[in-house]
Amino acid sequence: MPKSKYYLTKKEYIKKQIARTNKKNFENYVISRIIHRLDNLDLKFVTQQYVKREDGYYLADLYFPQLNYFIEIDEGHHLDQQEADKIRDADFQNVVGVSPKRVDVWNTTIKEINDQCDQIVTEIETLVIKRKSTGEFDSWSPEKEFNPDTWIKKGKITTNDKVAFRRIVDGCKALGLNYEGFQRAGAKHPYEENTMIWFPKLYPNGAWENFYDEEKGLIRERNIESEEKRFKHVTYHLNDPLKRRIVFARVRDSLGFILYRFRGVFELDEDSSNYNDGLYWRKTSKEAKTYDYNKKRTPACNIKSLNS
Amino acid sequence: MPKSKYYLTKKEYIKKQIARTNKKNFENYVISRIIHRLDNLDLKFVTQQYVKREDGYYLADLYFPQLNYFIEIDEGHHLDQQEADKIRDADFQNVVGVSPKRVDVWNTTIKEINDQCDQIVTEIETLVIKRKSTGEFDSWSPEKEFNPDTWIKKGKITTNDKVAFRRIVDGCKALGLNYEGFQRAGAKHPYEENTMIWFPKLYPNGAWENFYDEEKGLIRERNIESEEKRFKHVTYHLNDPLKRRIVFARVRDSLGFILYRFRGVFELDEDSSNYNDGLYWRKTSKEAKTYDYNKKRTPACNIKSLNS
Repeated sequence: MPKSKYYLTKKEYIKKQIARTNKKNFENYVISRIIHRLDNLDLKFVTQQYVKREDGYYLADLYFPQLNYFIEIDEGHHLDQQEADKIRDADFQNVVGVSPKRVDVWNTTIKEINDQCDQIVTEIETLVIKRKSTGEFDSWSPEKEFNPDTWIKKGKITTNDKVAFRRIVDGCKALGLNYEGFQRAGAKHPYEENTMIWFPKLYPNGAWENFYDEEKGLIRERNIESEEKRFKHVTYHLNDPLKRRIVFARVRDSLGFILYRFRGVFELDEDSSNYNDGLYWRKTSKEAKTYDYNKKRTPACNIKSLNS
Repeated sequence: MPKSKYYLTKKEYIKKQIARTNKKNFENYVISRIIHRLDNLDLKFVTQQYVKREDGYYLADLYFPQLNYFIEIDEGHHLDQQEADKIRDADFQNVVGVSPKRVDVWNTTIKEINDQCDQIVTEIETLVIKRKSTGEFDSWSPEKEFNPDTWIKKGKITTNDKVAFRRIVDGCKALGLNYEGFQRAGAKHPYEENTMIWFPKLYPNGAWENFYDEEKGLIRERNIESEEKRFKHVTYHLNDPLKRRIVFARVRDSLGFILYRFRGVFELDEDSSNYNDGLYWRKTSKEAKTYDYNKKRTPACNIKSLNS
């Protein structure tokens, strides 16, 4: 991605997504058929979408994030394939709330593959029309998607909207804080009391053994550099009034670019936190208010150093 | 290709053709868009179609043999690209009689790429309708394409129809000769006087330094094992009454499978042939009559050993 912009054009994005499909089997054929027959540049798609499961992860062959719609291409020819698919579908259902649509490319003619794709296309088109009619459909716009102004206009960010930013500075802006080139992992919220805006790595990294349990809405923040540092860290925050955090977790998107994804609003769980485990933060809200970063603020903004 | 059949299904064929496209740039995107928007399984397509030129060859990105329609994808961004394209188009025109259609994927948005593809799709659809209305359109049928019965029904094979067979035995059948598993490079024609059915390699191979000049309609057949063998070969044929040959040249198709392609009817050029160069055969007709191989023949068929 060129440094001058914080998003890929649709042309660049689509090229990269298609380049990840496998041509040797029918994956590329099915995906390109669905995309070209849909012929809708307002619909974002992701190939090989990462889907977390209990023990590891799946890569879904095709995913439409605006519709929460997954497509799996069945190349399998094992006798126990159907059984395995059922388990996989149930797993899928647990994690993302829907079963994937399946395209069988194994025991089918080219005509039957086409027909399966076209049925999916019709289903997606119907879904788009339905969502548009209820105002639930936002056209895919790479330049708006990661632009804080988009969310300032909406008045809030929510985890359901899968809000993410390319840069920390954009996450700050969405919450009313205008610092160009801001690099720290956190900042004091300019409007909300006792609140930090936090951009952590929610996985083990350097001196920090953090983790995030999405299902439980629980973050653990644990210093492993030394027991002394961990003690100081826990003590500091138990005594600090800033016990509320708006969290943007540092992740990589499907193409490997860094994103700061909104995970919700968290509050320090003082009972669970301890000198051995470190701090526990519990999700208290799936949404946060946004603020215009161009407005003059009355309270001066305090920037604090937090672990990243 | 399984041994049990002499053609690929459309499913197998399409998979193999698509697998040859390059995903890293827009070649795969453009080709799959055109194929999926056309959505016509009666239309055969070839990716990376070999096109002979004066000094070497081109690989055309996409080719529709039933329509003699070529598509080139322009990824070039050189300043002198347009000039080079003009020369290439003129070359193309010389060889295949038409200019290729061009899709510019360089200085274009994804929308503009789509629009260019869709314009080509409309053009192809119009061409198909036109050809159907004049009876010039034969639906793509892999099982009929290489089936001698198809040509026996038509009463003739012509070079314009790009007739080819997967096996020597099928070429023989088309001319009325039914030998299952026939492996020789030639056979005496069962009905036409002084005529051989010939399946040569028209390029240097082993003891033979053959070549074929399509423009001049000229085959040279030259033994290079020894001067003595060459002398015997030339002498034999100058004295042999079988001076007419129906030629199926051994070639490889776009996917690397062997084909025997009908090149026309040739006659020995006795004046040009000599003990140094070997034999010269000149094309005298672009078509040959076909015969039902199930009919009982009166004259016994003589199989002759010819160079392959």
